[in-house]
Amino acid sequence: MTTVYVDNAATTAMSRKAIEAYLPYMDGIYGNPSSLHTVGQVAKEHLEAARERVAKCINADPNEIYFTSGGSEADNQAIRSAAYFGARKGKKHLISTAFEHHAVLHTLEKLRREGFEVTLLPVGPEGLITPEQVEAAIRPDTALVTIMTANNEVGTIEPIAEIGAVCRKHGVTFHTDAVQAIGHIPVDVKAQNIDMLSLSGHKFHGPKGVGALFCKKGTPLQSFIEGGAQERKKRAGTENIAGIVSMSVAMEESCSNMAANAEKEARLRDRLIDGLMQIPHTKLNGARYTRLPGNVNLCFEGIEGESLLLLLDAKGICASSGSACTSGSLEPSHVLLALGLPHEVAHGSLRLSLCEWNTDEEIDLILQAVPEVVTYLRNMSPVWEELEKGERPHLI
Amino acid sequence: MTTVYVDNAATTAMSRKAIEAYLPYMDGIYGNPSSLHTVGQVAKEHLEAARERVAKCINADPNEIYFTSGGSEADNQAIRSAAYFGARKGKKHLISTAFEHHAVLHTLEKLRREGFEVTLLPVGPEGLITPEQVEAAIRPDTALVTIMTANNEVGTIEPIAEIGAVCRKHGVTFHTDAVQAIGHIPVDVKAQNIDMLSLSGHKFHGPKGVGALFCKKGTPLQSFIEGGAQERKKRAGTENIAGIVSMSVAMEESCSNMAANAEKEARLRDRLIDGLMQIPHTKLNGARYTRLPGNVNLCFEGIEGESLLLLLDAKGICASSGSACTSGSLEPSHVLLALGLPHEVAHGSLRLSLCEWNTDEEIDLILQAVPEVVTYLRNMSPVWEELEKGERPHLI
Repeated sequence: MTTVYVDNAATTAMSRKAIEAYLPYMDGIYGNPSSLHTVGQVAKEHLEAARERVAKCINADPNEIYFTSGGSEADNQAIRSAAYFGARKGKKHLISTAFEHHAVLHTLEKLRREGFEVTLLPVGPEGLITPEQVEAAIRPDTALVTIMTANNEVGTIEPIAEIGAVCRKHGVTFHTDAVQAIGHIPVDVKAQNIDMLSLSGHKFHGPKGVGALFCKKGTPLQSFIEGGAQERKKRAGTENIAGIVSMSVAMEESCSNMAANAEKEARLRDRLIDGLMQIPHTKLNGARYTRLPGNVNLCFEGIEGESLLLLLDAKGICASSGSACTSGSLEPSHVLLALGLPHEVAHGSLRLSLCEWNTDEEIDLILQAVPEVVTYLRNMSPVWEELEKGERPHLI
Repeated sequence: MTTVYVDNAATTAMSRKAIEAYLPYMDGIYGNPSSLHTVGQVAKEHLEAARERVAKCINADPNEIYFTSGGSEADNQAIRSAAYFGARKGKKHLISTAFEHHAVLHTLEKLRREGFEVTLLPVGPEGLITPEQVEAAIRPDTALVTIMTANNEVGTIEPIAEIGAVCRKHGVTFHTDAVQAIGHIPVDVKAQNIDMLSLSGHKFHGPKGVGALFCKKGTPLQSFIEGGAQERKKRAGTENIAGIVSMSVAMEESCSNMAANAEKEARLRDRLIDGLMQIPHTKLNGARYTRLPGNVNLCFEGIEGESLLLLLDAKGICASSGSACTSGSLEPSHVLLALGLPHEVAHGSLRLSLCEWNTDEEIDLILQAVPEVVTYLRNMSPVWEELEKGERPHLI
């Protein structure tokens, strides 16, 4: 059976170039970049070349890039750092949105328990935040605004440049979780007025276990993992040189091919949306247009997302109901609830996330399989029976 | 020019088996272990097999293993977790030693500033801590004892089982940074009464950027990186499945071959110690026998360690003066100062750390090069001239 992998927002396979970039560091260039000898210094040169490559992709300076173990660590560090620096000036108010990734929301929740005040902005039905909302929420004691560049479940792209401008106008540090955006849509930290940004290698065909934090020169940064003097004393631990170089190459590759990849993915995405919206009582989640090129997220009334996934998996289609990080949880997605969906609708979600390797043939397979499975599940569903009999009202 | 790499305490090259174990996860088995579909669940099975492999090497249960980005993160998490759980019961006293790795010392320093009280036990001239010292320091409000299994600079092996027994007797959580020990000397968390233990993949021919924290069942553990529900909600972030599997294979390999490797390394180590101690006014740092099989650490009076390293590097010998994590710092090693060495002696240190791949021919080269370089540097040194003329007293 062919496997159709359309869960690229959860993780991606490494590209040829990323794999080839990784290999030399396994045994050839294996030094510790902090070592003074040649073996270490060669590794250090490669580390700094990778830093330049990453910086260039987002229009940052190399010394504004700090390598981490991934997007979650970068989010944790950025938010805690900005919160604690704010607190020293008596600023203990943090602003975010209700549908951020859990790496952001759980960190904010922990800070709330430490005495910070957190405002979570409501998102509109399409998952859009406006700069006006942000400006209205900013107070004299606001230390940080953290709003994702693009949502991991529904793919909505936020007006980051405008939000960044509002934050700058009010002198508030602005962080964005750009884990789903990097390599997929243009990101320019200067043009978009971003102070801090998190990214993760495995979302654009780089390796897992490596990411980066951009922190603008002049924005104070506190270390999160304490220890050695690596990353200009802001991130302890021997640098994952193989992973870092491989990620930098994957990032460069994704950013170079971004326009062509996005065009292809958006075309396949639109085929999926147009095709699957033919299924009655189906809702597109997130914005129709202000959306990641590879993201499709739908709710089918009257079914359980988990059953849908398992039956699609049996047909070789690997998809998800939302974030992989919370799979196994019985709760519906906090993202879909934030969009205002009722619990019973949010339970029936399907996320299909594409990459540039997906093909029209794969879309054909999905367009055939999903309606079959939805019909099958609805035929078995007592809820659907009640809906069809008019014993309960359709919600979508 | 042949490269003689004797800085294996800083980092190691990956073994053939570790490389081969890594490769399939780059594109073949690339799923996110949290994904419900087959691609994800296959990755999950491999992740759990790696957990079993790691657990077995230290006589732990698989569900006592939490994968991290390395030893530093594991140290940070273990210490903070034990400190905060202690604080909830009014216990805010932490015990460690003066010559721990900075991942431990800097975390303790941060906790001290948060209101914890920290006792750093002095180490003897050989770097040994006694269980009696630990017992004498334990108070009713002691939340944690954290003492390394083996020192990263001087290789001294601590009486972990006895220290663990003392901690258990007094109901105090015991953590050990075993980063330098794992794969090199036997570690058994049950027999050694260890509650928490940190390890790092790249110190035993595994990849960089991956490590693990052992946390005994019943010992409470708080997450450090917040976010998704990975690692039973104790460590957020998509699992570095390739790195984790590769580390587990390298760990199994190192532990299986430990006796033979240790015998070989100890023999080469003793050749180095016996040969280099022939150089006048040379001191062996750390214990002569209670010592990691691959560790040599010497001070040569009247010279600067950094010059020694650079001249050895020019001869193809890659060594270090101490920890790579703090190289570039002008301060002498805190480890050597803790052993009671005067500043001027501590500056002239050389660490040679072996692995099982080093050969007698390499030892021959080192035994020829080091005396040459030491003599050359002493001949240029005004301090040495004063020492030789009797204008200042020899310290060693």
